[in-house]
Amino acid sequence: MFSGLSAFPLTPTNENGIDEAAFVRLIERLVVANVDSIGALGSTGNYAYFTLAERLRVTQLAVQHAGNTPVIIGIGALRTRDVLDLAEGAQTAGASAVLLAPISYQRLSADEVFGLYETVTRNLSVPLCVYDNPNMTHFEFSDELHGRIAHLPNVCSIKIPGVTVDPVAAKARVERLRALIPSHVTIGISGDGFAATGLNAGCEVWYSVIGGLFPKAALAITRAAQAGDIQEVTRLSERLQPLWTFFRQYGGSLRVVASAAVLLGLVEQDCLPLPLKALEAADLQQLAELLDELELA
Amino acid sequence: MFSGLSAFPLTPTNENGIDEAAFVRLIERLVVANVDSIGALGSTGNYAYFTLAERLRVTQLAVQHAGNTPVIIGIGALRTRDVLDLAEGAQTAGASAVLLAPISYQRLSADEVFGLYETVTRNLSVPLCVYDNPNMTHFEFSDELHGRIAHLPNVCSIKIPGVTVDPVAAKARVERLRALIPSHVTIGISGDGFAATGLNAGCEVWYSVIGGLFPKAALAITRAAQAGDIQEVTRLSERLQPLWTFFRQYGGSLRVVASAAVLLGLVEQDCLPLPLKALEAADLQQLAELLDELELA
Repeated sequence: MFSGLSAFPLTPTNENGIDEAAFVRLIERLVVANVDSIGALGSTGNYAYFTLAERLRVTQLAVQHAGNTPVIIGIGALRTRDVLDLAEGAQTAGASAVLLAPISYQRLSADEVFGLYETVTRNLSVPLCVYDNPNMTHFEFSDELHGRIAHLPNVCSIKIPGVTVDPVAAKARVERLRALIPSHVTIGISGDGFAATGLNAGCEVWYSVIGGLFPKAALAITRAAQAGDIQEVTRLSERLQPLWTFFRQYGGSLRVVASAAVLLGLVEQDCLPLPLKALEAADLQQLAELLDELELA
Repeated sequence: MFSGLSAFPLTPTNENGIDEAAFVRLIERLVVANVDSIGALGSTGNYAYFTLAERLRVTQLAVQHAGNTPVIIGIGALRTRDVLDLAEGAQTAGASAVLLAPISYQRLSADEVFGLYETVTRNLSVPLCVYDNPNMTHFEFSDELHGRIAHLPNVCSIKIPGVTVDPVAAKARVERLRALIPSHVTIGISGDGFAATGLNAGCEVWYSVIGGLFPKAALAITRAAQAGDIQEVTRLSERLQPLWTFFRQYGGSLRVVASAAVLLGLVEQDCLPLPLKALEAADLQQLAELLDELELA
């Protein structure tokens, strides 16, 4: 489960609640596309914006509609108390694994983050992926801390943020981390624009935002990486460069992917929790043209 | 209410819930000390870590025990939906005002933040203080955006983060902001180590963490500022320099103030929500000595 393409779908929502039918449609598309795993309630799934009850409901829907595709559930929360409840709920619902980011309001110390993972892994019966995303958590993992956490029971993967675009430096970065973690713990890349470099540098998984909406395009890159075809990975990713530029322009992938899902007719117009807003009309038109051009529409 | 000393108490809590008796004790101390207002459920009050129901309960306790002292309630939440519910709850409970920080998981755009304040102020019947705290929210207000928001109905104050320690630059910074906002909107300083510079630069309010636990020390500085005694403000603040150093060392004031409250016998040993931890034994001893030395114990 912690290798290949892990696809992260949106959780379409508006001020009245979650659009369950649209969420189920997104899950079913990923199953048909044959992704290696589904990462529900990741950052793209807006986990941080829902109540515990809403998160449990989304977890149940994901598991019920994923068939044999393993489902990884994001259980990050500001309080250890809530993380433990979410872990319990995910396990009971039949999730295959959980994903945990040390999100924060008050900046966390390394000792506090280690304490969180220690408590949570002690109470788990499914594997856990460590979610390292300083942009969202405002916590910077040291490699030393990654090493300590990776030795805790049930830890099976680390989702790292985008690496440098320099292939040599990227490989060195992945190998530096690899030397500190047990061999059964895989390393997964995120930040879609960096995925090609990460996969070519030896990451075993791509925790992918576009995989949640454009699974074929993401699978083509992933399968090329698994076949060791470095040039094809690079070529396929460079083709999507205008999309990566769009992501940067909007401070990340979420708003762009949400708007793309609207354009594809998969979700309703308003599909993000306010105050977050999707793209405005002029940019939406530009995105529509881009999706056509890239044959993603 | 948006002038003088606004004192921000802790909300003592542990994994079993909120220590209501200890919270009420903290509120009553502030009333006796005669602070100008009480800021409940601010960052020091750990608002981000509680459920909506817990926040409503703390709001009711604060209002019930504050007597004639105005109570300002923090209503920040990731979703506009929740902010509106919290605003409604604060008004119904009898809060005198609300405090709103644009907290984020996905980084917010200026347009999204303006939309949040526009929606919330349209639904308010009490004054609102804009809470600008980039360390916690990861959103940087431009002065232009402050100006636009300050013209919305019900906006009556802006809580700004610590200014530079240079008195001339601090005064220029406050005056630059002042030029863009209506005259009825006050500017308040936060970041206790910067309070003296901020007050001497013309801020009308000190939104104060130590005010929530050491109201006499904070009132002495505030009253000196209100009397225009710049030198006395500076002297009293410099005396507390070892405390500001402690705050920096612990990535902010919260953990230090929580430990100080334990040392003063006002709250139980574990008074922060995990994964947050208070000071360890060796540092606690050092803090105890410091409080003695500064006659804060």
